[in-house]
Amino acid sequence: MTNDSLGSKIWLNGEILSVDDGMVNLSDRGLTLGDGLFETLFWTGQTLRFFDAHMARLNGAARALEIPLPFTPQKIASGLAGLTAEANGVSAAVRLTLTRGIGARGLPFPQKTKPQMFATIAPFSPQTTAISVTCVDIVRASGAPSSRFKTLSYLDNVMAHHQARGLGFDEALMRGSHGQLACASNANLLLDIDGQILTPRVEDGALPGIIRSQLLARNLIQEARLEPSDLALCQHAALTNALHGVRPIHRIENRTLPVSDDWLNRLSNHLYT
Amino acid sequence: MTNDSLGSKIWLNGEILSVDDGMVNLSDRGLTLGDGLFETLFWTGQTLRFFDAHMARLNGAARALEIPLPFTPQKIASGLAGLTAEANGVSAAVRLTLTRGIGARGLPFPQKTKPQMFATIAPFSPQTTAISVTCVDIVRASGAPSSRFKTLSYLDNVMAHHQARGLGFDEALMRGSHGQLACASNANLLLDIDGQILTPRVEDGALPGIIRSQLLARNLIQEARLEPSDLALCQHAALTNALHGVRPIHRIENRTLPVSDDWLNRLSNHLYT
Repeated sequence: MTNDSLGSKIWLNGEILSVDDGMVNLSDRGLTLGDGLFETLFWTGQTLRFFDAHMARLNGAARALEIPLPFTPQKIASGLAGLTAEANGVSAAVRLTLTRGIGARGLPFPQKTKPQMFATIAPFSPQTTAISVTCVDIVRASGAPSSRFKTLSYLDNVMAHHQARGLGFDEALMRGSHGQLACASNANLLLDIDGQILTPRVEDGALPGIIRSQLLARNLIQEARLEPSDLALCQHAALTNALHGVRPIHRIENRTLPVSDDWLNRLSNHLYT
Repeated sequence: MTNDSLGSKIWLNGEILSVDDGMVNLSDRGLTLGDGLFETLFWTGQTLRFFDAHMARLNGAARALEIPLPFTPQKIASGLAGLTAEANGVSAAVRLTLTRGIGARGLPFPQKTKPQMFATIAPFSPQTTAISVTCVDIVRASGAPSSRFKTLSYLDNVMAHHQARGLGFDEALMRGSHGQLACASNANLLLDIDGQILTPRVEDGALPGIIRSQLLARNLIQEARLEPSDLALCQHAALTNALHGVRPIHRIENRTLPVSDDWLNRLSNHLYT
C-alpha cells in the first residue's frame, strides 16, 4: 500500500473506521472542557517508538485526572497496528486521544464516566534542521494539570507557537508561573551550560516529554531550575519531542548558537539503542 | 411545550438539528487542542440575559485568538431563539461554543479556517443558597489566553472544582501566577472589605465574567489586587456568574461569614434593571 491512503482510517473506541466516520458527540467533555489527554507517537516505519513510555505517561496522567483507561496497552497497541499497517516502511505521526466522554452541563465529573479513545495517523518525516526560538509572554501555570500532563487544554501552547511564528521564529519558549524557563510550545528545552546539559523541571512548568524522560533515564541530561538569563550563557541548545527527536537550536532571540554534530551525537547516539 | 423536550435540539452551524445529530469531526481543533471559546447564557424564560455583553466578550476573544466568527450576533440570536422556543416561561442554560474547526496535525492554524459554532440548551434554575469555598493549589496562568478568555481549554477549572468538592466545599478559589486571588473555577469572586466590594483583576488571572463586568460598569464593585490574606479580612463575600447571578458565600476555608440579604440587594437590585 502507498502513502497516499495514510490517514484514510481512524481507530475509534476499539474499531478501525473510515476517517469520514470519525465523529464525537457535541457533549463530549474533551470538546466542551478540554477534559482529556493525548499522546503523539512516532512510527518509524517499523515500530512505534517508545510505545511503553507513552503508555506509562498516559496511564499516570489518566489516573491523576481520574479518567479510567478504556483499553489495556496491549489492546491499544493492536488498535494502532491497524492504522500503521498502511505505513509499512514509511514514517508517520500517530495521535492517540482520550476524553472523559459525554457529560451533562457543568464542571462536575459525570456520574458514570464512559471515556472515549481514538487515534489518527498522518504522514510525517522528522526534521533535523536547526531552528530558532524566542520567549513569548504566555506563561504556563506551574504545577497545574494543563502543565504537568499532555492535556486537550492546549490553547496556550497553540497561541504561544503562533506568537513566535509571527515574530519570525520557528518555536516559542514558555516560562512558568515564577518566570523560570519551562518548555517550548510542543517540545522540551535542553541547554548546555559548561558541558552540563540541563532541562527545566516539571514543577517549573515543563511538560514531562518522552524524549526528555529517556535522556534523563540515561543520565545524558539533568533537571534544573533555569532562568531566562541562562539563555545567554548556554553554549549549545536543542528542543526535544517524540516526533522530531533532538533538534538543534541555531538562534535564541538575536543570539546565534553553534550547531555541532558532535554535540548532538552525544545525545542521539544513545537514545534509540 | 413542556420542559421535558428541552435539550432535544441543538443549533449547529446555522441549523436546528436533533441532539442525536450533534457531532463534530475528530480532527476539530476544539477537541484536539482546546482551540475555541464558549459562552454560557442564562435564559430567564423570556430572554437571554445580557446577550449583547456575551456577544461582545465572544467577539473580543475570537478576535484575539484570530478565529473568525461565522455568524453575526443577529444570526446567533435567531439560532438560539430556535432552542429557547421550547423553554417559553421556563429558565434554562444555553451554551454557545466556537471552535477553530478542522485542522491538520500540529499547532499552526489551518491555512483556511472554517470555524464551527454550535449551541445546546439544558434545564436550569439559579441557586441563591449560600455556598462554601476553599483555595486549591491549581494556579491560573495570569495573562495567558486560557485565563483571559473563556476558552475550551478548561481542564484546570474542572480539576480545581473537583479538588474543592473532594475537600467538602462547594467551590474552588484559584490563584494567579504570583499567588494573588484570581477567581473561582466557574465564577468570579467578590470580597467586601470595610464597605468596599472588590474583585480580582483580569491581569491577576480573573476571567472577565459577564456579571462581574455588569457590576463594574454600574460602579457597584471595584477591581483590586487581592491576596489570600484578604479572605480573612472580608466582612461579606460572594461568587458571580451568568447562570447563578450573585451567590453569597457563607464559609471560606474554616471561617464562617454572615449572609445578609441587605448586602446582596445592594448588588442584585441594580443588576437586572
